[in-house]
Amino acid sequence: MSIESPVIAVTSGEPAGIGPDICVALATRAWPMRIATVGDPAVLAARAQALGAAISIVPCRAPSDVGAARRGVLQVLPIEAASPVVPGRLDPRNAGYVLELIKRGAELCASGACAALTTAPVQKSVINSAGVAFSGHTELLAELTHAALPVMLLASKRLRVALATTHLPLGAVPAALDGPRLERIVTIIATDLEARFGVAKPRIAVLGLNPHAGESGVLGKEEQTIIAPAIERARARGIDAFGPLPADTAFTPEALERCDVVLAMYHDQGLPVIKALGFGEIVNVTLGLPIIRTSVDHGTALALAGTGQARPESLFAAVALAAELARRAKDA
Amino acid sequence: MSIESPVIAVTSGEPAGIGPDICVALATRAWPMRIATVGDPAVLAARAQALGAAISIVPCRAPSDVGAARRGVLQVLPIEAASPVVPGRLDPRNAGYVLELIKRGAELCASGACAALTTAPVQKSVINSAGVAFSGHTELLAELTHAALPVMLLASKRLRVALATTHLPLGAVPAALDGPRLERIVTIIATDLEARFGVAKPRIAVLGLNPHAGESGVLGKEEQTIIAPAIERARARGIDAFGPLPADTAFTPEALERCDVVLAMYHDQGLPVIKALGFGEIVNVTLGLPIIRTSVDHGTALALAGTGQARPESLFAAVALAAELARRAKDA
Repeated sequence: MSIESPVIAVTSGEPAGIGPDICVALATRAWPMRIATVGDPAVLAARAQALGAAISIVPCRAPSDVGAARRGVLQVLPIEAASPVVPGRLDPRNAGYVLELIKRGAELCASGACAALTTAPVQKSVINSAGVAFSGHTELLAELTHAALPVMLLASKRLRVALATTHLPLGAVPAALDGPRLERIVTIIATDLEARFGVAKPRIAVLGLNPHAGESGVLGKEEQTIIAPAIERARARGIDAFGPLPADTAFTPEALERCDVVLAMYHDQGLPVIKALGFGEIVNVTLGLPIIRTSVDHGTALALAGTGQARPESLFAAVALAAELARRAKDA
Repeated sequence: MSIESPVIAVTSGEPAGIGPDICVALATRAWPMRIATVGDPAVLAARAQALGAAISIVPCRAPSDVGAARRGVLQVLPIEAASPVVPGRLDPRNAGYVLELIKRGAELCASGACAALTTAPVQKSVINSAGVAFSGHTELLAELTHAALPVMLLASKRLRVALATTHLPLGAVPAALDGPRLERIVTIIATDLEARFGVAKPRIAVLGLNPHAGESGVLGKEEQTIIAPAIERARARGIDAFGPLPADTAFTPEALERCDVVLAMYHDQGLPVIKALGFGEIVNVTLGLPIIRTSVDHGTALALAGTGQARPESLFAAVALAAELARRAKDA
């Protein structure tokens, strides 16, 4: 491996959750890319000790100091937590620390010092209870990188699911659907799937909002007034989007053969399926950002922090995909 | 097989759809129960001819005249269609005929003449366009059998998913959630899964309404104000219900091992998953009715009517499950 291999910045997330656990697990194998974990070296060392993982925590000044990813060594870009960390116990005093990890990660990628960002989970509620308005990782990264419209995509080996809306109360979803916005989302998916994932002219299956995609208007009108027209406009610009499809039959094996990605209208219309079909190997990718960003598909799992029961497979898949996307971006 | 085996009434559904096709397919095998198809013998004969199926259509006066289900014979309780039927072409003039099939099927089961009802799909929109207010098969059957609260359950070999709300525009779902109603739904699921499916003390995983089950109230309050209290009240009465769970992680293999049924709050939160995991073998069962009723999991598939491409597996599974539930009811 050459020193020219990309550096992937990995933020360690909520320190009371399993973020530090799964970052420590990164050091249990060698990787074909360089990895810079962003976090508090003391928190990571304490977690490694709790897990009985015999690894060295090596602080690095900058990404350029990060060497090859060797087994037994975790290279860390240090940021200090504000308050002592107890696994499983949320502490609003560390909310600023958690946000700082994300900001640092975004800066490192925006400046080109790192090639891609992979994020461990954060806990929205504790950040909010610290008095910070925070609706999610993705939304903050969009703000930090001046991206107008981030698009959440979950990718597994079996399928890709993108979301038209993300973390909204269900009752707020219909009002959040907007034709021009939906058309831009379809466009971002088409562009990023081609540029980053190497899918030529991606086939985008767009779901309806209502059951049975509104059943000709009997079960809702948004398909006719918003979704179908947005699809038509995208098609007129050469994008292979189609629908709106009834969600309940859009994920059968036959239906999935006809598309490269499913665009769900909201969180629980698409995510339960992909997690049912392939939990543990799913990566959350944010499209529409100027940086490459992948994330785990799970939450902070507070009860598992420090127990050795946290599973690092999703983080491993997220880091691997980040490196793959970064290499394709470099070659392009 | 004794003549005492239960008679399953099978309504043939929308005549322009694949209902007649899959009913004709019933005659391609022998069955360990008696089957009385409810429909127009002429429509069924024409469809059999279109499909090149060499079967005899045998009209029966009453269920007591229905004999063993032999290969090559379809026994029919006749009701005449109002207007000539063209496969694939909806005709509002036949809306009354379609409703009559359902009414006849419900009566046959309510009177005890048939042991269970299995229904082929109907097309809501054409019934509505004929000027009849019709929100669904299940709702009509509840009305016909004077059931206060029908509960839709989809069952496959891999999982069972029940719905707290069914065919509503998405925007109408939050207002339709009601604590006492939800508690009754949980009770019906517990009762019917035990009595009809033979599951002792069923474990009922109840989903949240909002993404991440509201994430401690940050993404919606219905979990705290409606769902959790309803679960608590059911638990206080000895029902093993738990939740509210985030929908996206409720269908992983591990999560499904911890429950016998998942109660989703709305159509597209639960149905895409079960159809993704096992399309073609899924049966729709209506709980909370005084009669046993199963149904296919698919729609009318108008474009496939008469082409030979309709797949009868879901109807076969629905008939088989209806007979199984009927036998258990008889033994109880």
